[in-house]
Amino acid sequence: MTATIIDGTAVADRMRAEIAGDAERFKHKYGYAPGLGAVLAGDDPASAQYVRMKRRACEKVGIESVTFEMTADSTQADVDAAIQSLNENPRVHGILVQLPLPPQVDEERALRLVSLEKDVDGFHPVNIGKLAMKGREPTFTPATPTGCMLLLEEIGTPIEGAHAVVLGRSNIVGLPVAMMLQKANATVTICHSRTRDIPGMIRQADILIAAIGKPEYVKGDWLKPGVVIIDVGTNRIDDPASEKGYRWVGDVDFASANQVAGAITKVPGGVGPMTITMLLKNTVKAAWTIAETLESSR
Amino acid sequence: MTATIIDGTAVADRMRAEIAGDAERFKHKYGYAPGLGAVLAGDDPASAQYVRMKRRACEKVGIESVTFEMTADSTQADVDAAIQSLNENPRVHGILVQLPLPPQVDEERALRLVSLEKDVDGFHPVNIGKLAMKGREPTFTPATPTGCMLLLEEIGTPIEGAHAVVLGRSNIVGLPVAMMLQKANATVTICHSRTRDIPGMIRQADILIAAIGKPEYVKGDWLKPGVVIIDVGTNRIDDPASEKGYRWVGDVDFASANQVAGAITKVPGGVGPMTITMLLKNTVKAAWTIAETLESSR
Repeated sequence: MTATIIDGTAVADRMRAEIAGDAERFKHKYGYAPGLGAVLAGDDPASAQYVRMKRRACEKVGIESVTFEMTADSTQADVDAAIQSLNENPRVHGILVQLPLPPQVDEERALRLVSLEKDVDGFHPVNIGKLAMKGREPTFTPATPTGCMLLLEEIGTPIEGAHAVVLGRSNIVGLPVAMMLQKANATVTICHSRTRDIPGMIRQADILIAAIGKPEYVKGDWLKPGVVIIDVGTNRIDDPASEKGYRWVGDVDFASANQVAGAITKVPGGVGPMTITMLLKNTVKAAWTIAETLESSR
Repeated sequence: MTATIIDGTAVADRMRAEIAGDAERFKHKYGYAPGLGAVLAGDDPASAQYVRMKRRACEKVGIESVTFEMTADSTQADVDAAIQSLNENPRVHGILVQLPLPPQVDEERALRLVSLEKDVDGFHPVNIGKLAMKGREPTFTPATPTGCMLLLEEIGTPIEGAHAVVLGRSNIVGLPVAMMLQKANATVTICHSRTRDIPGMIRQADILIAAIGKPEYVKGDWLKPGVVIIDVGTNRIDDPASEKGYRWVGDVDFASANQVAGAITKVPGGVGPMTITMLLKNTVKAAWTIAETLESSR
């Protein structure tokens, strides 16, 4: 028997249709659309591509976007000024600071400058601090980890009491998803490059979040039968048989894992489409909150 | 063979002597002593007792203290005003908001009001956020978890690659100590009341931090031989044989654990004396930073 495929594209499409309806209702009520502001500094092609994808996705659901595209020699003052301008712009409800910033810019300082109520990426240190603590709710949670949690929910995965192993400890995925699983009452183990026996740890997992950035790293014989796998990895590998000469694979060896897991995401078509969807959802949520606050303060 | 006893009292005494010397040098240079401000609202006897102990400890190392003692019906505005006054007082270098605050006061809001450079308790959400994230260093780290890390260091425990199991997930101990161990490259598992097989998890631990608040809960036969145990629990149990009718025990059954562990703290005399020591150390550190900043801005 093979695993249930967790179809991120289908979930994302359904959610984007809901978001588009919500954005439409917002525009109908207030006369203007929800807005997302982005700051892109430097000439990293992946970052530029990512910002373009986000802008296109915004357009499709009826979110307007403003992008500050800045050169690689932008100073801290330049980046700070762009963020301030977005903070003050009443038509911008969400702010996205595309990482990495150029080395001369202090990333933490820039993220800290984003208004809490516009922090749709959930990376403001106060939001991360609240995410880490019991009894505190961040205004927004980071997109990719939230997408992972929704995919688990989608197939009814029991989280409370489950042993969740998170492979990778990045600020963007591994650490925040570990905190979210922990808040949902899973027993969480974070594995990383210094972990001694990664297969031994993964073998205990009822839920595995793979976000270590190593192509097809996790093998089927490392898995507990029935494990639910969310594969966040997006690795490009050479593939002479394909038209482009390459293809995308996850951090999990799909062919062997599919024989053992209870459910698994595909790469692409798993977490990927969920990430931008979460950003869109947060932006429309921010728009309602900001517009309602403005209205009630009149 | 029995375990090495990790003597928190001895480490704390040594550190307090160093802190007293440092406070003396500060006073000699600036003409006034480092200062700790405390906000105590409500009539919880344990909180009052704790603030008294801290004040006494300050006095012994040459730190002056200012305490706002407020009634249980204090409003958010009252607490905010007390914190603001300590923020603005140039002779106060560290601020301690004794938790719990009365229910009508928003704890997170109060903690967020504390100046980052005076957050000697390390509980400002920005400091917790930085603690949780890779590549970010909080200005101060919470006292008890820092004390745990120093005790591990004291006996030369290898942390990198070790499997550290944290039992308990409080904001004050469990969660921050898990983040600190993770930053030190341990593989960390957080266990809590919803964990299915706590003994099974603990059996894997090279390092065990017990902070679950259950008297003598962890038994010797749950342990991997050689494990290093930091017992944060401080539980009062009836003991008709003792003069007072009670005694203090940790979360670990010392008698049986002592036969299996490689090293273990005692309760009392383990983490307890370290906690206030860390607060004193942070206060003197804050005093130097604040005074030097003032001086250089003249």
